[in-house]
Amino acid sequence: MSLPCPSPLTPAVDWRPAIRDAAARIAGDVRRTPLWRLPGRALGIDVAEVWLKLEQLQLSGSFKARGMFNRMRSLPLPAAGVVVASGGNAGIAVATAARALGVPCEVFLPEVATPAKRAALAALGATVTVQGAVYVEALAACVARQRQTGALLMHAYDQDEVVIGAGTLAAEIEADAGALPERLLVSVGGGGLIAGIAAWCAGRCRVEALEPERAPTLHAAWGAGKPVDVTVGGVAADSLGAQRIGAIAWSVCRQHVAACHLLPDEAIRTAQQRIWRELRLAVEPAAALGLAALWTGAVRPAPAERVAVVLCGANFDPTGLA
Amino acid sequence: MSLPCPSPLTPAVDWRPAIRDAAARIAGDVRRTPLWRLPGRALGIDVAEVWLKLEQLQLSGSFKARGMFNRMRSLPLPAAGVVVASGGNAGIAVATAARALGVPCEVFLPEVATPAKRAALAALGATVTVQGAVYVEALAACVARQRQTGALLMHAYDQDEVVIGAGTLAAEIEADAGALPERLLVSVGGGGLIAGIAAWCAGRCRVEALEPERAPTLHAAWGAGKPVDVTVGGVAADSLGAQRIGAIAWSVCRQHVAACHLLPDEAIRTAQQRIWRELRLAVEPAAALGLAALWTGAVRPAPAERVAVVLCGANFDPTGLA
Repeated sequence: MSLPCPSPLTPAVDWRPAIRDAAARIAGDVRRTPLWRLPGRALGIDVAEVWLKLEQLQLSGSFKARGMFNRMRSLPLPAAGVVVASGGNAGIAVATAARALGVPCEVFLPEVATPAKRAALAALGATVTVQGAVYVEALAACVARQRQTGALLMHAYDQDEVVIGAGTLAAEIEADAGALPERLLVSVGGGGLIAGIAAWCAGRCRVEALEPERAPTLHAAWGAGKPVDVTVGGVAADSLGAQRIGAIAWSVCRQHVAACHLLPDEAIRTAQQRIWRELRLAVEPAAALGLAALWTGAVRPAPAERVAVVLCGANFDPTGLA
Repeated sequence: MSLPCPSPLTPAVDWRPAIRDAAARIAGDVRRTPLWRLPGRALGIDVAEVWLKLEQLQLSGSFKARGMFNRMRSLPLPAAGVVVASGGNAGIAVATAARALGVPCEVFLPEVATPAKRAALAALGATVTVQGAVYVEALAACVARQRQTGALLMHAYDQDEVVIGAGTLAAEIEADAGALPERLLVSVGGGGLIAGIAAWCAGRCRVEALEPERAPTLHAAWGAGKPVDVTVGGVAADSLGAQRIGAIAWSVCRQHVAACHLLPDEAIRTAQQRIWRELRLAVEPAAALGLAALWTGAVRPAPAERVAVVLCGANFDPTGLA
């Protein structure tokens, strides 16, 4: 099920200068990930080219490192360091950045977080606090702790520096290819990644959002005309399971995102397996939505198009890919 | 344990025109794999840059597709198609190429080949024959069958077109980077890959061979002054477990390979795990030798060097990486 973009309501802000500045700011911290350009036929897709942005190879295992380094490099870092409520890719990225920059990091997790996640964050040097039955309780504890210590509060997606950092990924695609593609497919959870990418492209190419049917934050916002809470679940909930689209993302997406497509879990899982089998790329389910959309026909570009797909993360257990 | 290269005994042949021709010949068949350039510090290695040639993303899951397509595109293809004795990456590549080119493929395997391998080859459309207790018996059956059918005999590494096809990988590195690196590290089994790469570089950069201690074909040849049989085993035997270095590889390596290093299984396995953990690249053990050599200090480049490492394959079960 797909929704077209609503008409823009406010004049566009030009985010590009801020994204260029961010790229320079974090160049020594993050990896410039490869852009792999393949003829569409190599993937069994009837388009001129598919460009795979191999961002799952980013430091910390996901694109989140870009935004977290950008925020931590943009703002004064208190002696108390940083604090975040996230057991997923955002938490891993904040802990990775804090270790690299030599500041303390506190991570708040709800009781449902697996022991493996707690251990992974602790191994990165973070102080892990488990509090509350669900995420919002961990977040409340995180905010309370921030007031107590004065640490820099990091949000998984809804802060300007985080969105701008994510936008550096699109700037790299354009620089490496010498042009933007005709179409760019991005998975959406809280919306930080697509907001940064859409802010960079700003109508110069067709940016489309992909969401699991069971985690439809942007789709629901478009239906309601504003961000609304959704019930999340499914195979990609670990990465894309935000409860609602971020306010910044909503503002950017309604201006610069052309369409939003929902994908069933089965298509996502099948694509994840096929990406391993045919391309030998090991990616988490959240990173499989773009190729899932092309392989299932949920997105049907014109044959002459160049379509870019962001493989956004690989923080998962590869057991079961084979 | 490392050996320096013996002095060249014969004048070098210039393989480069043939490699350029091969690159054009197979351009529509194989993938141009990414060259990922990272600062050495991103990998914890004290060199200016590490260039990772992500050849594990090649069609068929290893570099072997280059040589097999090149041989099949260079020679007349009989109606009987192709025949090969290999249960490893060479067999998979031949079956993949045969399917793409629409010709029959027969693969001979010894009884020790796992059912999973037989099934993988059959799934590619190959006719699989299991014959003999060990590889040489399967090879004898393969050769006998070739005489009977007139099919094109494919060798895993010791045929000119196969070596020349492998050389296209080095040509891509040079084209993508705009230069050769100062040093290039290549895993060696039968030697087809390093022969192609060394033939392309031809003394213009330092090409070094890496072998498992338990599969030391080139090392043994250098010690003996000629190719000799070795006993093979260990974690990378599946890909690098040739019984002796190929005649073509021996001829090229003694001219154009600067050193040969042996690595213990433990270092290979540790590097394979670290490549996943820190880089999110899933590679087979054979592809881990280059970074294993740098991480263990078996190879110690000067700090100003750019070192290229070929990640040559990913045909393995990723269970256990996490």
